[in-house]
Parts: sequence; C-alpha cells; structure tokens
Amino acid sequence: MENNLITNWDSFLAPYEQAVEELKIKLKGIRKQYREVNSHAPIEFITGRIKTKESILEKAEIRGIALDRLEEDIEDIAGIRIMCQFVEDIHEVVRLLRARNDLHIIIERDYITHKKESGYRSYHLVIEYPVQRIGGEKIVMCEVQIRTLAMNFWATIEHTLNYKYQGEYPQVLHDRLIRAAEAAFLLDTEMSEIREEIMEANYFFSDKKKNVN
Amino acid sequence: MENNLITNWDSFLAPYEQAVEELKIKLKGIRKQYREVNSHAPIEFITGRIKTKESILEKAEIRGIALDRLEEDIEDIAGIRIMCQFVEDIHEVVRLLRARNDLHIIIERDYITHKKESGYRSYHLVIEYPVQRIGGEKIVMCEVQIRTLAMNFWATIEHTLNYKYQGEYPQVLHDRLIRAAEAAFLLDTEMSEIREEIMEANYFFSDKKKNVN
Amino acid sequence: MENNLITNWDSFLAPYEQAVEELKIKLKGIRKQYREVNSHAPIEFITGRIKTKESILEKAEIRGIALDRLEEDIEDIAGIRIMCQFVEDIHEVVRLLRARNDLHIIIERDYITHKKESGYRSYHLVIEYPVQRIGGEKIVMCEVQIRTLAMNFWATIEHTLNYKYQGEYPQVLHDRLIRAAEAAFLLDTEMSEIREEIMEANYFFSDKKKNVN
Amino acid sequence: MENNLITNWDSFLAPYEQAVEELKIKLKGIRKQYREVNSHAPIEFITGRIKTKESILEKAEIRGIALDRLEEDIEDIAGIRIMCQFVEDIHEVVRLLRARNDLHIIIERDYITHKKESGYRSYHLVIEYPVQRIGGEKIVMCEVQIRTLAMNFWATIEHTLNYKYQGEYPQVLHDRLIRAAEAAFLLDTEMSEIREEIMEANYFFSDKKKNVN
Repeated sequence: MENNLITNWDSFLAPYEQAVEELKIKLKGIRKQYREVNSHAPIEFITGRIKTKESILEKAEIRGIALDRLEEDIEDIAGIRIMCQFVEDIHEVVRLLRARNDLHIIIERDYITHKKESGYRSYHLVIEYPVQRIGGEKIVMCEVQIRTLAMNFWATIEHTLNYKYQGEYPQVLHDRLIRAAEAAFLLDTEMSEIREEIMEANYFFSDKKKNVN
Repeated sequence: MENNLITNWDSFLAPYEQAVEELKIKLKGIRKQYREVNSHAPIEFITGRIKTKESILEKAEIRGIALDRLEEDIEDIAGIRIMCQFVEDIHEVVRLLRARNDLHIIIERDYITHKKESGYRSYHLVIEYPVQRIGGEKIVMCEVQIRTLAMNFWATIEHTLNYKYQGEYPQVLHDRLIRAAEAAFLLDTEMSEIREEIMEANYFFSDKKKNVN
Repeated sequence: MENNLITNWDSFLAPYEQAVEELKIKLKGIRKQYREVNSHAPIEFITGRIKTKESILEKAEIRGIALDRLEEDIEDIAGIRIMCQFVEDIHEVVRLLRARNDLHIIIERDYITHKKESGYRSYHLVIEYPVQRIGGEKIVMCEVQIRTLAMNFWATIEHTLNYKYQGEYPQVLHDRLIRAAEAAFLLDTEMSEIREEIMEANYFFSDKKKNVN
Repeated sequence: MENNLITNWDSFLAPYEQAVEELKIKLKGIRKQYREVNSHAPIEFITGRIKTKESILEKAEIRGIALDRLEEDIEDIAGIRIMCQFVEDIHEVVRLLRARNDLHIIIERDYITHKKESGYRSYHLVIEYPVQRIGGEKIVMCEVQIRTLAMNFWATIEHTLNYKYQGEYPQVLHDRLIRAAEAAFLLDTEMSEIREEIMEANYFFSDKKKNVN
C-alpha cells in the first residue's frame, strides 16, 4: 500500500514538474530576447522546484487542508523564483507575465511595497498554467516569486534560520537579521539610484560592441 | 548594412529557436509520462534545429520564394525530429500531437505508407505553434518529422550523400542505397513482429521492478 | 537503520555519478572537435547511467560477490555507452580512449569480432577514472560500451525480452531475435560498404559549406 | 583568408571552451557532495565563459601582447566564476582547489584582504588545466574568480559602467559606486556575523529532514 501511495505521489507531482520545466524555458526566453537586442534584461536568473511529498503533507497539516484538497488549496506545489538586478525590474517582469497568453494570473501579493514584519520582501504571483498530458490538458497552479538578488540573499538565510527557531529568534539574532535586511535594502536603494546610468551605459555598450565586430 | 542584416536575421530566427526549445521540453514530457507508469514510451529521443540564414536563402532561391514570404512559405525554418523504436509508435505520436491544445497541425504527409522514390520513409507534420514574445504572441510554423531509428539512420546517410551528388548517384552507389533502405525496412519489420512480445515484457518488467523495490 | 543504509548508498554511488557526468562532457568534447573541422565524428551520441542499489545487490547475489567487495568486483556500477554510425568508428573511438591521460583502460572485450551466442555485438572497455572528492582523489571503475546504432537497437530489445524470459526464449521468439540480429548486421554491412562514399561526401560537404558561408 | 582566420580562431578557442565545460561539471560536483551530507556548501553557483576573438585582440593591443604570445600572456581566455554565500566560504573553496590533482594553481591574487582602489573585491586564481584533444593533451590557463553574491553584484554593475566611462566616472557616480560597494561590504559583514547561527541551523535542519522522511 505504501508502494502504491508513492506511485500515486509521483503521478500527482508529475504535471507540476512538467509545468516548472516549461515555465523555466519560457522565462529564459524572455531574458534571451532582451539580450539579443543588447538591452538590459529584467531577469537575472530563474530557479524552479516542486515541493516534496513530505513538505506538502506538513503544510497541509499545519494549515488544516484536507488531503483531497491539495491541488486546490496549496498554491506553491510548483514554484518558480525570478531574480532581478533592480527593484524596477520586478515590476517590468510582472507586466510581461500579465501580457502572456499561455498562463493566467489569479493572485498578486506585493510584499515589496508592504514588506512582512520579518523583513521579507518579494513580489508573489499565483498563476494557472495548462500542461498537456497523455490523458488531456491539466491546469496546475504555480507560485512565482520575483525578487532582487539582495532580497533573495536575505530570504535564503532567513528561511534557513527559521527552520531552527520556528520564528522564535533570540533577541541578538533577531537584531542581526533586521540589520541584514536593512543592509540588503540599502544595497537595492543604492543600485536603483545608479540604475539610470546603467541603462545608458548598456545602450552605449551595445553600440560599442557593434563597432568592434 | 551587412551588420544590420545579420542583426535582423537573429531577430527573425529568435522566435523559431524559442519554439524549438519549448517543443523539445514538452515532447520529452510525453516520454517521461510513459516511463513514470513503466509503459513503453513511443518516443525514443528528440532532436531540434533551426535552419541557418544560408540554408533559408538557398531554399528560397531554389523554390523561387520571395524574401518577404519566408515566414509563410518555408515550413521548416523550425524543425523537430522524433525518433521511435517501432513503426507503430509513429502513429501513436501523431495521435498524441493531434490531441494537444498548445499547437495546431496544418499539414500531414505520410511518407511511410507512400515512401519516396529515393527510399525515404518518415511521417511529416507541419504545425503552427504560438510563442510569447516581449511584443506579444507570435505564431510560427514548425516541421515535425517522426521516424523509426532505422529510418533515421538511412535518411541521415542519404542526406549526406545527396550533398555530393545532388541526387545524381552513380549506379553502384544507387544500388547500395536501395539495399541499405531495404535492410532498414527489414529491421523495422522484424522489430514490429516482436513488438507484442516487447509490450508484454515491459509490462512484466514493470511488475518485477515493483517487487524488487 | 534502513535510513542510515540509504544515506550510505547515496555516498557510495556519488563518485560513480560524478565520474559518469565528467566522462560524458569529455566524450562529447571529442565529437565537437571532429565537427569543428567538418570531418566525420566517430561518435554519434553518448548515454550514461549508474546502477541502482537494487541492481547492484541483485548482481552481487547472482555472482556471489561479498558486500564489502562491490567496488572491486562489480565493473559496471558506472556505465557509459557510445553510439557510432559505422563499425569502423568503434575502433577509432577505442584508439582515442587508449591515448587519453585522464583515464586508464584495464580490460578490453571485443564482442564484435567474437559476438555472443545470443547475437549480441559491442566493444566493451573497463576503465579506471580518478574523481576529485572533498576528502581527496578516488579512483572508480567504469564500463564503456561502444556500438553502432544498429547494434544498440538490437541490444536494447534483447535486454528487455531477457527480463521476461531470463534467456529461456520460446523457439519462435528466439528465431525472430536471430533474424533481427541478422537484419541489424546486414544494415551495418551495407553502411560500411558506402562508408568510403560518405567520407568523401563529408569532405566535399565541408568544402561546400565554406563556399556558402 | 578572413575565413581561414575565423576557422583558426574556432580551433584556438576550442580547448578553452572544453576546459570551461569540464571545470563547471567538476565544481558543481563539489557543491553536490556537500549537499549530499546536508552540510552548508561553500559554492552557491558557478558561471563560465570564454573571451571572444574581439575581446582577446583588444586586450592584446592595450597590453602590447604579440599575437603569437596570446596563450602564454593572456590568463583569462578561459574564465570560471564561483559565487559563495559567505566570505568564509571563499577561503574554503581556495583550499579545496589547492588540494585537487586535476588542476595546478600558478597564481593567487587576494583582492579581498587588499581590495582594489575602485572598491572591487574578489579572490583570483590562475590555474593550468590539461584537456585531452584528438591530437593529444593540451594544457590551458584559466582564471578562477571567487566572490560572495554581494561582491558579484557590485562587480557586475561596475563592469558595465566602466565600459561607458573607461574608469573616468563623474564625481556623483563615483560617490554612488563607493556607497554601493560599502553597502555590499556591510551586507557581507552582517551575513558573516550570523554565519555561525546558519551553520548550526543547517546542521539542525539536516537532522530534522531525516526525521521527517
């Protein structure tokens, strides 16, 4: 029976994995298109993952989600993370995703304008994405997190610490995390201020390369 | 001007390249889905390519296609090739492609039932496939060739020789190519005859693996 | 305890997996080098795999190998398969592998000159390959199978059937397998006969491409 | 003649490209080995590139390097970049590279202890790496840059701006770059301070995962 259950889990997760693979290729295509014309790409890099069986069951238990409601009630079984150089790029990526015909945004959560109490900043979308399976089309949900490199750096570390302390940090560690969040925010702010210079420099750079070739 | 032209060619070819990359990921997903349930996958492996500028211009010249009609009149700027173990698999793959919502078949050419005079056998589809670009959706054509490994082997060799002789083979080479096509056909036929055995063996094999795990 | 064992298996298999990944990149480099100079590459494609825990334990049991002798006595925990267009290419690949400084051939088995009774044909090498691990260098064995596409096609099918019948085929199936092996051999022979033509055509082809560019 | 030159450039660059591909696979193997045992990997991600013909010629001209001395005098035709989470990881990576038998470090430059006047921080190695070619072994030089994510972020931006201003920044931009370098350094420092917590949390995390499985 355990074996049957595992087999079912593989089948359950397969369309999510397919969605993540297809979305990664498609989003990398956006980056490539900007680079073809030598303009600044709003996407630096992309990662994707699907939740494990254990992680799904844990989330279902914590949130009181019935096992026959996992597909409908857990939004991040499939997850895509898009890293950007500048805060401004995040909004550009959101605009590009809104304009696509091959996916449908159902939820937007702006944790940049409204950062979480922990210091967490990111822009979250939940999308519906159709995958073609042998048995026909299946629409799966996927969470898309869009962040700067600095936001991502901080979030990765906070995530790891959270496993240890379950959010109950000692005061000294709490203070350090807040200071690190401020340093990350400061870095993003300084970068945005020189962004216009970068934009012009990229333009110049692309001209230069043409002359050299 | 030459530089501008090359820049334009890159832009011209980019959506075709994007289509090929997406289709490869999607078709590999079909193979994976069969293997998940331990049944025989009708797809052995997949290759993709886009025609070069030179090859497109050569084809346009030979066929008298105007340069502003390349998109509409050259069907194989994007090309996908699907290799199958058995002739029967080819028809299964065609059925799967007909059922998909993310592409549209506009032409089917059955060079298996009706092999070309040269000995060439394959099943060809021309599809329309939408890619999402920064500027919006663009629909591109893509030729999909579906073949057995033996058909592919023969076709690869014939293609190379054709470059040398432009179809005007010396009699001895012509005879050898015909004999090779017959040997390839014979191999496919022998394989089809034991296909039912393979199907059952795969089923048994999948059982066996479950017992071992 | 079972969990500890699985952890150990992952660690046990990790250097083999690393070896297979490195060897695949290196052998693809050979193919690329031939194609750079537009000459016929003796390597068509390469696959790699590592044996599963279950498969290793099964082989150890059948052959009476002690569990503390797996590294020394099972030669194919890591496996690389090299597919060639022509029988002649196989010997070229063997020569190239003999000349490398980054691996050491310890066994050669020529099942082409001396095909197995079943009809199986392939050239096998066992190599020693050093991988650099955090704890220092580790030398692992890897089996390299070199075959034509036709040999590979037949071997794949025979392998699947063998799982069902454990080598005890019914007479009718046995006869079909023999006929399929003969068809595969015939295809290889016809191909070798036109190989010289292909060699010349490739040479011509490469000239032609230079003129076109 | 131009065509012959381009052909030669491809051949000239091919061993460097092969070296970069092999080194990327090998260094990813280090990261994988840490993750297998659930301990913090000192490598976050790796990128590689080879210089273009244009970039090599430009560097040769600026530095007065003769065209028959490119192999010996340009150290970064092949380039690998290793990104780390913590400054401490950089030194761990250097120790791992020093211990390998498959490469030889010939130069070390510590721009972390001694940052450049521009604000640039990174640890640079130049290594000799043997690649196996059809014609025998060839030893190529490769520059390895090891940095934190924050160092990389700053360096990427400074590199882009440098193309525009050739190092002659307007005062306001110069000040912003310095402030951004300080923000990046601050982020690294805060991160190092909570590193010990992370190390323990990772250890705890790995325990936890075992219990859940």
